[in-house]
Amino acid sequence: MPMSEQSKRLLWRDLAIFDGLTTLPERHWVAVEDGRICALGTMQTLDPSQHRDAVDMGQGGVMTPGLIDCHTHLVFGGQRSDEFELRLQGASYEEIARRGGGILGTVTATREADESALFDAAAKRLTSMIEDGVTSVEIKSGYGLTLADELKMLRVARRLGEQLPVRVTTTLLAAHALPPEYADDADGYIELVCDQILPAAHAEGLVDAVDVFCERIAFSSEQSRRVFEAARALDLPVKAHAEQLSLSGGAALVAQFRGLSADHIEYLDDDGIAAMADAGTVGVLLPGAFYTLRETQHPPIDAMRRAGVAMAVASDANPGTSPIVLPTLMLNMACTLLRLTPQEALAGMTRHAAQAIGQPDLGRIAVGAPADLCVWNIDSPAELAYAVQPGRLKHRLLEGVLTHG
Amino acid sequence: MPMSEQSKRLLWRDLAIFDGLTTLPERHWVAVEDGRICALGTMQTLDPSQHRDAVDMGQGGVMTPGLIDCHTHLVFGGQRSDEFELRLQGASYEEIARRGGGILGTVTATREADESALFDAAAKRLTSMIEDGVTSVEIKSGYGLTLADELKMLRVARRLGEQLPVRVTTTLLAAHALPPEYADDADGYIELVCDQILPAAHAEGLVDAVDVFCERIAFSSEQSRRVFEAARALDLPVKAHAEQLSLSGGAALVAQFRGLSADHIEYLDDDGIAAMADAGTVGVLLPGAFYTLRETQHPPIDAMRRAGVAMAVASDANPGTSPIVLPTLMLNMACTLLRLTPQEALAGMTRHAAQAIGQPDLGRIAVGAPADLCVWNIDSPAELAYAVQPGRLKHRLLEGVLTHG
Ligand SMILES: [Zn+2]
Ligand SMILES: [Zn+2]
Repeated sequence: MPMSEQSKRLLWRDLAIFDGLTTLPERHWVAVEDGRICALGTMQTLDPSQHRDAVDMGQGGVMTPGLIDCHTHLVFGGQRSDEFELRLQGASYEEIARRGGGILGTVTATREADESALFDAAAKRLTSMIEDGVTSVEIKSGYGLTLADELKMLRVARRLGEQLPVRVTTTLLAAHALPPEYADDADGYIELVCDQILPAAHAEGLVDAVDVFCERIAFSSEQSRRVFEAARALDLPVKAHAEQLSLSGGAALVAQFRGLSADHIEYLDDDGIAAMADAGTVGVLLPGAFYTLRETQHPPIDAMRRAGVAMAVASDANPGTSPIVLPTLMLNMACTLLRLTPQEALAGMTRHAAQAIGQPDLGRIAVGAPADLCVWNIDSPAELAYAVQPGRLKHRLLEGVLTHG
Repeated sequence: MPMSEQSKRLLWRDLAIFDGLTTLPERHWVAVEDGRICALGTMQTLDPSQHRDAVDMGQGGVMTPGLIDCHTHLVFGGQRSDEFELRLQGASYEEIARRGGGILGTVTATREADESALFDAAAKRLTSMIEDGVTSVEIKSGYGLTLADELKMLRVARRLGEQLPVRVTTTLLAAHALPPEYADDADGYIELVCDQILPAAHAEGLVDAVDVFCERIAFSSEQSRRVFEAARALDLPVKAHAEQLSLSGGAALVAQFRGLSADHIEYLDDDGIAAMADAGTVGVLLPGAFYTLRETQHPPIDAMRRAGVAMAVASDANPGTSPIVLPTLMLNMACTLLRLTPQEALAGMTRHAAQAIGQPDLGRIAVGAPADLCVWNIDSPAELAYAVQPGRLKHRLLEGVLTHG
C-alpha cells in the first residue's frame, strides 16, 4: 500500500520503546566492548577503524534487538503427534489420558530419556528458534516431577546455553503437574518441591527463577504461595502460569511476591491487573497455546494497556499445547489473534521479555546494552509481524559476535 | 505419548491415499527414468548399481510426495504491512481503502513494478516454500487487471518455474477485482477479460487454467459464467474463488463446467457439494486466509467427507489475507483450525492438490509417477502437521534430481 513517509514515521513514533530499533538505508557498524554496544552508526558517524571490535551490519533491512522467548518448555522427551492425530479423529481428552497421553505421557518419556537424548532433541528445536532471530530463551523444567528428573532437565537447559549460541535462563517448574506417585497428595508433593527439589536445584546453580502452574487442574493458591515463599527465602525470583483456564487469583498472588511475570492470563481480572501494575509484574501472552487450544477467552489487552502493565509475547513451546518453534510466527499470532500492534508484539519479544526473565538490560539497542542484535531482510519493522516467512534473518549478533550471516 | 506400534499402524491404515508414503527405518534408494520413479526400495529390494539414476534417500525420517501448493498469489508488487498495522491500530476497512490500501493498493504497486522487480520479490517467497518441501506451485495473476499487466504477471510466474527448482502452473485470474478504470462497468471489464486478455494470454502460452472471484464484492454468477465459457471455448480448465464470504452458487457453477476446483468454500451448501462430487471438482481449503481474517464460518468438512469431495489445502499466499509462505504451517492450520486429520491435510497438499492443478500424476509415490519426493527429519507422518518447525526438510527430489540435502 503506497503510504507517505510521514504516515510511516507516525506509525512508529513510539520507536523509543525499542531504544533504537532502526532501518538501515545506509551501511551500519556496531562497535562492541566486552560484549556490549559502545557505539552504533554509519561511516559518517562511526569510523570502524577506530574500534577494535566493530561489526559490519551491512546495508538494507531492519535492525532489532535479538528476540527473547521468555516462556518455553523446550526440554522434553518424545513428542505428541499421535495425540494430536487422535484428537482430530474425535478422541476425547479422557480417552487420550487413558491411553497414557497428555502431559503425563511427556513426563513418562522425559523420565525415560537420558540427558544426551534430551539435549539432542531440544537442540534441534532451539536451533530453529536461533535461525529465526532468538538470542535469549527461558527454559522450564516440569516434565520430570522427581528430584532427579527435574535436575536432569535443568542441567540439559544449562548445557544448551553453553553449547549453542544463545543465552539460556532456567526456571524450575516442579509444580507443573501432580506426578502419579502423589496422585492423592498434592500437599505432600508441594512439600517435596519446597523442601527437596528447590534447595537441591538451587545448590547446584540450576535455577534462575521459580514457576508454578496455579490453576484448578494443577495447584491451588495456597500451594502456590508455599512454593513462592520457599523461592523468595532463597532469594530467587518467581513467576506463575496463571488465569489460563479460569480466574484463580494466581496473577495477584505472584505480584504480591513482586514476581517477574504472570503468564497466559486469559481470565485475568482488574484486581490482578492492578496488582501486576503495582509490582511491575509483566503479563506474558502465549498466542501459540491460545491458537492450538482454539481459545475464545482473550487476555484483557486493553485493560493492561490502560494500567501500564508491560506485555511480553512468548512461544510456550511445548509438546502438547504449542508445538511451535518459530518466534516470528508468535509475533504474527500476537497481532492476528490477540490484536496487539506490531510495535507491541516486537516490544513483547524484546524489551518486555527481557523484564520477564529478570534481565532488563537485554532486549534493547542502546549504548551499554549487551550487543545482541538482528538484522532482517525486510523494509519496515512491522513486516516482521505481518508476514510469516522463515529465512528472513540476515545477521545475528550475540554478545557482539556475528553468529549468522 | 507412548503408543503401541499397532495403534500407529491403525492410525495410518489409510496410507494408501498417498500411494506409498513411508517411514524409512532402513536406507532407501529411488531409481529414476526420465524424471519418473521406476523403482523404490532398500538395498534388499533394489540394487542401486543396477540403476543408472538411483538416488540415495538415506536412512531415517519420513518420505512424502513433494508438497503441492495449488492456490497462491505469489507474484505481486509491494507489501501491505502498513495496512496490517493500521488495522490493528483500529482503522476501518473504509479508512484503509481511502488511504489507497487493500487489494487496489497491490494493483497499483504491481502495475508500477517491472518484471524483474516482481520476479525478485516472488523468488524470495517461493524459495521459502521450496525450502519447506514444495515441488509444485500454482501462481495466479490478478493484480494487473489490464492486458499488459496481467501478461506481465503470468510471464513472471512462468519464469519462476524456469529458473527455480519447482514446477509452476499458471492461472489467469483477471477477474479478481474490478479495476478503477471500470469502476462502474463490471460487464465492460468482463468483456475485456473474455475478448482480449484471455485470448492474448492463451496465445502466448501463459495460461494453464482460468479462475474467477465469484462473490458479492467481486463478480456475479452471470459474469463468472461468461469467463468460464470463454475459457472452455479455448479448452482451458476453470476454477473459482467461491463461497468465501457468502453463498453465491459459484461452486455449483464451476462444477457445471467440470472445474478443477472451488476454493475457500466456507459457505458452501449441499447443492454445491453434490455438484462438486458429481463433477470431480476439488474443494480447496485455505486456512491461512481463514486464520488471518479470523473467520468463524467453517467450510463444511464433514459434508464434503460424506459426499466424497476431494479436499486440498493451500496457502492462498497473498499480501492481504494470507501473507504466509510456510506450507507445513498450512498443514498445521488445516488440522488445528479446520479440523482435518493429519492424513487429510497431507493428502490435501499432495494428491488432492495435484488434482486441483490438473496434474493428477503428481502428488503420489508410485512407479511411473514423477519423482518429486521429500524426506523429512521426523519420526511419524503426523508430525509434519503437528509441529511448526522450519528446517525439517532433509532431502528433496524434483524430477528425480536431488535439489536439497
Ligand atoms: Zn507454559
Ligand atoms: Zn486466492
